[in-house]
Amino acid sequence: MNKILRVNMNDLTCKVEEVPAEYATLGGRALTSTIVAKEVPPQCHPLGPNNKLIFAPGMLSGTPAANSGRMSAGAKSPLTGTIKESNSGGTSAQQFAKMGIKAMIIEGQPKDDKWYRLHVTMDGVTFEDASELVGKQNFDVIDAMNAKYDTKIGVMTIGIPGENRLAAANISVKDPDQKIRSHGRGGLGAVMGSKKIKCITIDATGAGKVEIANPEKFRAAAKVFAKGMLDHPVSGEGLPTYGTNVLINILNEAGGLPTKNFRYGTCEHHDLVSGETMYDTIVKRGGHHKHGCHAGCIIQCSQVYVDEAGAYITSGFEYETVWGLGINCLIQSLDDCARIDNAMDNIGIDSIEGAVLLAVAMDAGVLPWGDGKEALRIMNEEIGKCTPLGRILGNGTASVGQAYGLTRVPVVKGQGIPAYDPRSVKGIGITYATTTMGADHTAGYSIATNILKVGGFVDPLKKDGQVELSRNLQIATTSIDSTGMCIFVAFPALDIPEVLPALVDMCAARFGVEMSVDDFVGMGARILKMEKEFNTKAGFTKEDDRLPEFFEYEPIPPHNAVWDFTPAEIDELWNF
Amino acid sequence: MNKILRVNMNDLTCKVEEVPAEYATLGGRALTSTIVAKEVPPQCHPLGPNNKLIFAPGMLSGTPAANSGRMSAGAKSPLTGTIKESNSGGTSAQQFAKMGIKAMIIEGQPKDDKWYRLHVTMDGVTFEDASELVGKQNFDVIDAMNAKYDTKIGVMTIGIPGENRLAAANISVKDPDQKIRSHGRGGLGAVMGSKKIKCITIDATGAGKVEIANPEKFRAAAKVFAKGMLDHPVSGEGLPTYGTNVLINILNEAGGLPTKNFRYGTCEHHDLVSGETMYDTIVKRGGHHKHGCHAGCIIQCSQVYVDEAGAYITSGFEYETVWGLGINCLIQSLDDCARIDNAMDNIGIDSIEGAVLLAVAMDAGVLPWGDGKEALRIMNEEIGKCTPLGRILGNGTASVGQAYGLTRVPVVKGQGIPAYDPRSVKGIGITYATTTMGADHTAGYSIATNILKVGGFVDPLKKDGQVELSRNLQIATTSIDSTGMCIFVAFPALDIPEVLPALVDMCAARFGVEMSVDDFVGMGARILKMEKEFNTKAGFTKEDDRLPEFFEYEPIPPHNAVWDFTPAEIDELWNF
Repeated sequence: MNKILRVNMNDLTCKVEEVPAEYATLGGRALTSTIVAKEVPPQCHPLGPNNKLIFAPGMLSGTPAANSGRMSAGAKSPLTGTIKESNSGGTSAQQFAKMGIKAMIIEGQPKDDKWYRLHVTMDGVTFEDASELVGKQNFDVIDAMNAKYDTKIGVMTIGIPGENRLAAANISVKDPDQKIRSHGRGGLGAVMGSKKIKCITIDATGAGKVEIANPEKFRAAAKVFAKGMLDHPVSGEGLPTYGTNVLINILNEAGGLPTKNFRYGTCEHHDLVSGETMYDTIVKRGGHHKHGCHAGCIIQCSQVYVDEAGAYITSGFEYETVWGLGINCLIQSLDDCARIDNAMDNIGIDSIEGAVLLAVAMDAGVLPWGDGKEALRIMNEEIGKCTPLGRILGNGTASVGQAYGLTRVPVVKGQGIPAYDPRSVKGIGITYATTTMGADHTAGYSIATNILKVGGFVDPLKKDGQVELSRNLQIATTSIDSTGMCIFVAFPALDIPEVLPALVDMCAARFGVEMSVDDFVGMGARILKMEKEFNTKAGFTKEDDRLPEFFEYEPIPPHNAVWDFTPAEIDELWNF
Repeated sequence: MNKILRVNMNDLTCKVEEVPAEYATLGGRALTSTIVAKEVPPQCHPLGPNNKLIFAPGMLSGTPAANSGRMSAGAKSPLTGTIKESNSGGTSAQQFAKMGIKAMIIEGQPKDDKWYRLHVTMDGVTFEDASELVGKQNFDVIDAMNAKYDTKIGVMTIGIPGENRLAAANISVKDPDQKIRSHGRGGLGAVMGSKKIKCITIDATGAGKVEIANPEKFRAAAKVFAKGMLDHPVSGEGLPTYGTNVLINILNEAGGLPTKNFRYGTCEHHDLVSGETMYDTIVKRGGHHKHGCHAGCIIQCSQVYVDEAGAYITSGFEYETVWGLGINCLIQSLDDCARIDNAMDNIGIDSIEGAVLLAVAMDAGVLPWGDGKEALRIMNEEIGKCTPLGRILGNGTASVGQAYGLTRVPVVKGQGIPAYDPRSVKGIGITYATTTMGADHTAGYSIATNILKVGGFVDPLKKDGQVELSRNLQIATTSIDSTGMCIFVAFPALDIPEVLPALVDMCAARFGVEMSVDDFVGMGARILKMEKEFNTKAGFTKEDDRLPEFFEYEPIPPHNAVWDFTPAEIDELWNF
């Protein structure tokens, strides 16, 4: 019943393959990373014919399990050169899962210059002429597809930067509100563009329900799991009220809020863009402060941010984006930040990379510090239209740093460092340095324990315990990324003893297999090592597991902390 | 008597240091690479405060030995991330040698935004305000310094791209005709710019002669050496007549002349830009077809290329540049090519990187194929003025490839592949892949034996013998690069038995030491391994010793050859 769709862009064919036994209980990151590791030559050019782009819903996607509706996308990344997994909300994961599509593997490149839309139905994939969609940004693509089909059509699309294979281009996924969620990090939109696929539409007509081998066990576990989510103060209260942007004031207090391209750890105007201010603004204007990125989400950390007249500006307005624009670029107007966020959704640029690179561009003198209007213009008119300046920027933070010959360039393996300073929150620095993905906070979110005191407490300013913390989180996250769950299930899982076993029980019940917590965590460790091995074969060494040099010689106030781990200390992370 | 100048840009001081015993008999590449390996942290940012820029004349520079007047510059390269040695003709090496300056080590960075000119005299170094020179291109800098001092003043300078730290920026050295020679490859001009040094002037007043420990032995060896140079058909006849551009027709005949960004191995219009055509044009217009890049050169492979009215257009118009513009970019007018070459001298861009990247820009649609006028405008107005497009281009071939999302991007370790196709001249492919410098034909010039049948013959289309050929040449070249000799002494050295011993005898006589040919070659092997070790510590692995993937799947006519070495075969190079 389950199948793998193998799409070959060389000859525009799609084979429907049986799911190999070894993939049967995998999903999400475990499956996309396994397929990349098995099928993609580690030394291939990420934009060349030998890279592959793989989509896989999570192990639990499409089931009634709360918060399980995330799709994983995998490939060799044009931004980092590493293996890449990036997962997204939206409607496509649940559609794929209900259609029995365990994974879609897209390989090859058309020989001609034509653009295609892959149309996925229960019968397989057809290759539609996309010439009328080329040159459109994401919201127009979604509108066109809604008009052609109806609003139930699933859409995964790239904007003009993705068509032009810019390394910060993401893959945008339509969400239940006809807005956009993203496979954000690592430039997977450029990989899709390199295969001349403008858009993937999913018509799930005829799809059934996801089979659950042991429904009773599943239901019982799902109940425990959902209760844990609602009981925990972060996932049950903080996130639903203020969204992820609750973190602005918290990180400012901790001195770990990178400000003015990582010069300072606190920001005077933090309250202008804080989660609390965002909440008040939304409530006053009649937007929604609770909102889910996919059906079945019970955290509802998203929001609908509206203007003074109550008209939509953006949603999925995350802490990392608000930080990047409002704090690190010193853009004091939350409305400006929201408009830039929406522009990034529309043109299809990772909103973390987009914000981090803007601060480097400000350091280079490309635009004035804090100028939100000019930043918005640059998004739409330069990056969105792929002008020469837009190409410099749209290829990511490292590209901007190189173009302007700068040394304060916050990247690891070419990917921009997000919203937590590694000098003053040292656990996250270990994650940035060592994750297989390039700088990525979600890969091992030490902020939970360093700052939020979830899962215990490890002092963020001391080196002790950080490597072990990051290692454990990176392994657990790899497992969670495989389930289709959103990362925030980690908060209750770290604090409430019955949550992780319930998650594992749901997976076991779904597939009708025995699975212990150790098995589940062991899967994460195995996949993580597989990803690492891919990177090694691609030419990465421990010398790449390092933060930029400036973190070592520029102390960050207020703690005047520097990055002081020795190479040997960092390399201990992989000792498992 | 000999000394090392240690210039510290942090506090604008210069220490005059004694030459350590271990450096006593070193010079050129052996000395710059040793100092880089010893003093520069391999993981530092090439444009940051911890990189150093080192200049050292060759072991024989300043002596009466023919062709010994080349200066070596070394640093960690912003283009490749590897160790970098780039040597240049001009007047500075002989000035340094006669002033007893064994090496100048430039370290640190000024804290403020001021630009400096280092003024080197027998008394040491002074730090002059360079604010009036900033924003000038190279010829204007030279004119200004000639006017301030006199035409004997030595000048090493960077253009506006170097000020802006673009990774293809070179360091330009004034030659005996007040024109320009270059430390071309690897972006050392950006390193100089990162240290806020616009220009280095050398007033050699009071300098003596270079001491020679055993003048009699030296004279005898120098005579044998010079005779060998003049007797060999390549150095004594081909190069003096046609310059290095003699190679256009030869490579075309061999099917190894990369055409239209490495699509074809022959070019229909090759004769329009060949060495023979250049010779006829120069003679007809009253230019000079023989010309030396430094005093004491007896090969005279340079030329003065003039326009129809007899006015100077360019000199040092090398095969690789003519190939890159005239063949690989399809610019059919030799005059256009010459004007672009002169523009690259003036703005201070490596003329190989500049030509290779233009072809990739043409592939990207930035300018039309073969449009020499637009290429000239782009050099002067875009790269020369560091516009956004100019920054994309001025950061080198890999930067252009990334900005436009291309896969036919001929680089190794980020450096553009020059004028010999590695698929149809396989020995040079091994050199490109494995040299410590990023793609560099001079690092192990297999063309000598693959094509010119100097030093025997190894069939360019077969894999047999290429690794051994490249290894031997890379080792020997490292030794020769240390003497201050130009690379072309290798032709007679490979064919005439008494030439290499004579070169070694000159070195031995210069320093008053015993030195066998084995000692001399052993020095090269030792330095090469030291450079390799630096790269390893910087994070390079054997996976970086690979050619771009497209060489494996795009056969090149007329031989329809592909790059077919296995990784294990390539890696054999380092088995010594």
